[in-house]
Amino acid sequence: MKISIVGATGYTGAELLRILVSHPAAEIQYITSESQPGTAINEIYPHFTRFYDKTLASLGDLDKIAADSDVIFIGLPHGHAMEVGRKATAINQKVKIIDLGADYRFRNPDVYEQWYKVPHTHREAQAVYGLTELNRSQVREATIVGNPGCYTTASILALAPLVKNKLVDLNSIVVDAKSGVSGAGRGLNLGSHFTEVFESVKAYNIAGHRHTPEIEAALAELAGKEIVISFTPHLIPMARGILSTCYARLIDGVSPETVDQAYHAMYNDEYFIRLLGRGGYPVTKNTRGTNFCDLGWHIDKRTGRVIAVAAIDNLVKGAAGQAVQNMNVMFNIDERAGLDNAPLYP
Amino acid sequence: MKISIVGATGYTGAELLRILVSHPAAEIQYITSESQPGTAINEIYPHFTRFYDKTLASLGDLDKIAADSDVIFIGLPHGHAMEVGRKATAINQKVKIIDLGADYRFRNPDVYEQWYKVPHTHREAQAVYGLTELNRSQVREATIVGNPGCYTTASILALAPLVKNKLVDLNSIVVDAKSGVSGAGRGLNLGSHFTEVFESVKAYNIAGHRHTPEIEAALAELAGKEIVISFTPHLIPMARGILSTCYARLIDGVSPETVDQAYHAMYNDEYFIRLLGRGGYPVTKNTRGTNFCDLGWHIDKRTGRVIAVAAIDNLVKGAAGQAVQNMNVMFNIDERAGLDNAPLYP
Amino acid sequence: MKISIVGATGYTGAELLRILVSHPAAEIQYITSESQPGTAINEIYPHFTRFYDKTLASLGDLDKIAADSDVIFIGLPHGHAMEVGRKATAINQKVKIIDLGADYRFRNPDVYEQWYKVPHTHREAQAVYGLTELNRSQVREATIVGNPGCYTTASILALAPLVKNKLVDLNSIVVDAKSGVSGAGRGLNLGSHFTEVFESVKAYNIAGHRHTPEIEAALAELAGKEIVISFTPHLIPMARGILSTCYARLIDGVSPETVDQAYHAMYNDEYFIRLLGRGGYPVTKNTRGTNFCDLGWHIDKRTGRVIAVAAIDNLVKGAAGQAVQNMNVMFNIDERAGLDNAPLYP
Amino acid sequence: MKISIVGATGYTGAELLRILVSHPAAEIQYITSESQPGTAINEIYPHFTRFYDKTLASLGDLDKIAADSDVIFIGLPHGHAMEVGRKATAINQKVKIIDLGADYRFRNPDVYEQWYKVPHTHREAQAVYGLTELNRSQVREATIVGNPGCYTTASILALAPLVKNKLVDLNSIVVDAKSGVSGAGRGLNLGSHFTEVFESVKAYNIAGHRHTPEIEAALAELAGKEIVISFTPHLIPMARGILSTCYARLIDGVSPETVDQAYHAMYNDEYFIRLLGRGGYPVTKNTRGTNFCDLGWHIDKRTGRVIAVAAIDNLVKGAAGQAVQNMNVMFNIDERAGLDNAPLYP
Repeated sequence: MKISIVGATGYTGAELLRILVSHPAAEIQYITSESQPGTAINEIYPHFTRFYDKTLASLGDLDKIAADSDVIFIGLPHGHAMEVGRKATAINQKVKIIDLGADYRFRNPDVYEQWYKVPHTHREAQAVYGLTELNRSQVREATIVGNPGCYTTASILALAPLVKNKLVDLNSIVVDAKSGVSGAGRGLNLGSHFTEVFESVKAYNIAGHRHTPEIEAALAELAGKEIVISFTPHLIPMARGILSTCYARLIDGVSPETVDQAYHAMYNDEYFIRLLGRGGYPVTKNTRGTNFCDLGWHIDKRTGRVIAVAAIDNLVKGAAGQAVQNMNVMFNIDERAGLDNAPLYP
Repeated sequence: MKISIVGATGYTGAELLRILVSHPAAEIQYITSESQPGTAINEIYPHFTRFYDKTLASLGDLDKIAADSDVIFIGLPHGHAMEVGRKATAINQKVKIIDLGADYRFRNPDVYEQWYKVPHTHREAQAVYGLTELNRSQVREATIVGNPGCYTTASILALAPLVKNKLVDLNSIVVDAKSGVSGAGRGLNLGSHFTEVFESVKAYNIAGHRHTPEIEAALAELAGKEIVISFTPHLIPMARGILSTCYARLIDGVSPETVDQAYHAMYNDEYFIRLLGRGGYPVTKNTRGTNFCDLGWHIDKRTGRVIAVAAIDNLVKGAAGQAVQNMNVMFNIDERAGLDNAPLYP
Repeated sequence: MKISIVGATGYTGAELLRILVSHPAAEIQYITSESQPGTAINEIYPHFTRFYDKTLASLGDLDKIAADSDVIFIGLPHGHAMEVGRKATAINQKVKIIDLGADYRFRNPDVYEQWYKVPHTHREAQAVYGLTELNRSQVREATIVGNPGCYTTASILALAPLVKNKLVDLNSIVVDAKSGVSGAGRGLNLGSHFTEVFESVKAYNIAGHRHTPEIEAALAELAGKEIVISFTPHLIPMARGILSTCYARLIDGVSPETVDQAYHAMYNDEYFIRLLGRGGYPVTKNTRGTNFCDLGWHIDKRTGRVIAVAAIDNLVKGAAGQAVQNMNVMFNIDERAGLDNAPLYP
Repeated sequence: MKISIVGATGYTGAELLRILVSHPAAEIQYITSESQPGTAINEIYPHFTRFYDKTLASLGDLDKIAADSDVIFIGLPHGHAMEVGRKATAINQKVKIIDLGADYRFRNPDVYEQWYKVPHTHREAQAVYGLTELNRSQVREATIVGNPGCYTTASILALAPLVKNKLVDLNSIVVDAKSGVSGAGRGLNLGSHFTEVFESVKAYNIAGHRHTPEIEAALAELAGKEIVISFTPHLIPMARGILSTCYARLIDGVSPETVDQAYHAMYNDEYFIRLLGRGGYPVTKNTRGTNFCDLGWHIDKRTGRVIAVAAIDNLVKGAAGQAVQNMNVMFNIDERAGLDNAPLYP
């Protein structure tokens, strides 16, 4: 496969490159940057020396990029990716698009416009939401994939068996998530300044984070009805990793074993989901640098709640890794290709 | 005041010493350690050089300690403190006891026995639960104070105005808390080993942490009825700090302004509570090294929930600082004595 | 004393404020910021709530500031402080100036111009280099103090006894220093971005760091002859702290005891120097939040070298704390005033 | 190749396993642990789930292990490995041994005994010191390889071109090294306790660290004469990475270009050495999870010194990675096999 990465100098784009330089079937055609076109990527990221040292192109080269690529990954800010997607698919109707931003994540573009405050300019796109484990068959047929957000991947995977099997009160869902700082990107701001983040923890965007409607949409599809959840993201002094702690009230009479069965039925055959079982405690470090999602769940008899916990590497299963997983599915190759490395521990 | 610290070599005991060496009215009589009696404290903690270099006594000296002290702080594991409290008050009926462990936290010792799995051997003690802002008048009269846990202090302070004023559904409370590693103490274990904790986050003791009944008991007292909550602690790669994110469903018709009024009515005159208001985001770093609890709250209209967030330094307001605050109250001196320093930032 | 802080919103200025709000003899008159004048300081640094909430003035108010202050601390970038010093002392000939930048650190302004690449515009200033332990008597009489840099404070204090007593080959000195990230300030740049610094260490400015001539000048004064040293700074993933590891070849025949005596003779009466002795290992954490410099030294018989190690908090003894120490000396009050708190550990 | 790992539960052993499960030519036969035999490795290290879940054997199985293995990696404390090496090579004369500890690192066992304080019990072993880039041809023929230490690998690689080409005064060498905490292993001790290490830096084992004679021996071999150096290790609050800053005085008349040529001549063809050139700044993060050694060097004209800096991942090029590199050389396969992944950044 000939692949290109539009927007390669952010952490997500760099993580894509890290994975793809070792991918057995990927041949990198173009990588782009609007801020530093003409620069070799390993001047920006010296760690790529020995792996990739080509020069960054720009969106001005989109004609060539679209014509010469089988798949384009897009790592641009929301609002920009849909323009690239529209044009690229017009130039080359065979090119596949995997967007790591939000533009193609919503089946209903009105929800997108409501939360992202920009008009959707590629409403006719038949995009598929790329949470691979839930939507594999659609991903396989897709031309355009909206790759899920980091918080959403962890949260949906933790809750899906409960919601799909109607084991919990859909009005009772609370998701409390903790993320490393790489999720905020490489752009400079005081909130990612070392001395401000270090030895500290805080919540942010309470009741307003844009991953909320994305989680709700995916769960609603599983439930067959509308869902609203409370979602609270937190910033943790570490580079990589998301832990999502999800609370829901069990429907009366649902036994612990029924809960267990729901998780096993949904995920036992999923390579990238590692079930730690009832009582298991996922640890983000155990997933570092990999596409795994570790899952554990707990029943609190006193309160009648189930607490499900998911751990991922936000840049891999929460972004670039799942994007490559989707590419593998779209091109009908081994889903693990390029992604089958053991975690870096400790 | 002549004070002694029984169990001075753990992080909590050392933090007490840090505060008390600068306290204008405290004169330190004895500090003890069962593991290193006879050693100078600044051999164990060199940072105390210039401040305190006396030798550690042991519990074998309890007769002298009790006789020569106006107040004894106890920093022992649960199950041991009540023995010291019983004996010390028998030796000197005027001595006041402030226990930083769990032994004296529960009005109902059966709850203690149920969660801590040891018999309570000082059931006749008229102990007061030392969450100062809630129980100041009882603390003032107390002989024995059970100083609250770290998670509990943050969680109760965040929820108290909501529960006391019956603004939330008491069955809907979820507390998701994040703590630095100092809360696990100085004892060696793999869970506090640098390389295991660093660049990682995990939940632990889901549906079973012993701070759960302590939060429930304090809230029940405010509500006038039993409460069960879901409480989940998490370990964060930092030394100090607790952030407690608390979720509850608002009673229908409760307005945001009513919520605001509840917080302001309860805390406006409290020096150590800094209200960030509705929409405010507490940050643990802003409380580092101090006795402050920073509080913010948010209304999620879509879900009908209120999300209240509290930040403290777990070793200060969550342990040694609140203990000194209680001492100040018990001895009728300025509640801020020894505790009125600005946070160490960054 | 009426004090003002010109440039109060950087980390150094904020640390000055932290110390001075608890100083028994300081009354804060003005604090300034050129980037955020008119803003309350606790909007920028919420942790100051309860301690200081006044509004930031600007340099446009220098007439008033100079007239109404006994001492002005300057926390501006180099090149700007000397202008403020010149004007302020013209407005009020009694006002004392303590500059935390480099403008007044060099007896010879040519050295300043050579390393800082700007003309010195206040050459007639009779500034004193404020390394208190070495220059106390001059500081006492000074009107203008050039407060030392962070690396330089640690390095000079470690080497001074060796150089002053001619125990080492002056051509053999190597200083390898490690600093936390707060030394780079609050200004945004990729080098202080959390994810870039975290889990990483690097050297920077090898053979060119501007603290080099400052160390050399102070040592030359002690030695009575010119000295050149190799100085290498490193960035460490922590917020506060500097460790300076200093290597020098002992003159033939100098005994370990002679080295010990040199340290004890110079520092035994210094409150803020804590000697860990020969074989001692300073730890930055033991100095956190304080004005202490912890010192240890080692003799390597195999190589004939002495290795001296100093640990400080870069924002306190390396900046704001030493500035306040100098103020105390200048105003003939207890040198420890405002600075006598125990370290925050852990 | 059939490989076994004796001592697989320390961080070094686990890192070997991480690399070898993805090695195209390695088939893992046995892994052992004396503390937890009979346990599945992924119970101890859950991150290995999906990669390796076999049960740990013990040294009681050495007969089988030696007979069934082409190569045995040893990750035991010093003093124990030579016993295993002696017995295993007696059982199977064809088995190759790669010891990651110190037992086989010294050509002269007297030096080993002097620094390690234990008798050497396998003096007849014809062991080769496995710093691959320097000793490749001997490694190729070796039966037993003493794999270098972490500090030593970085320090020797940084200094070798200077020493081999006689560009520096051999009496002037100072090595100041900084290591992450994983180098101290997984064993519990206060020095690796999170809250003690975090937000702190310290030196340790000054003038006495056991990597000193190892660096000296390797450099002496290059120089053709004895060398003593000053070596100071430091502990940095991060998990992985070593930065070694090396100082030496240039011989009069040696030009910067001569220094450059020495580095390029020695390393230009080395895949795992990435030369950043004169003025380059290695960063440990750029090597994380890989076998690379990044090198930069600087000429300080004022002092006549060269400062060479090396960055490695202490667990990879400093331990397990170089061990696998040596294995690849010994078995005449591509030296990069199993080691050719891009760094995990950030």
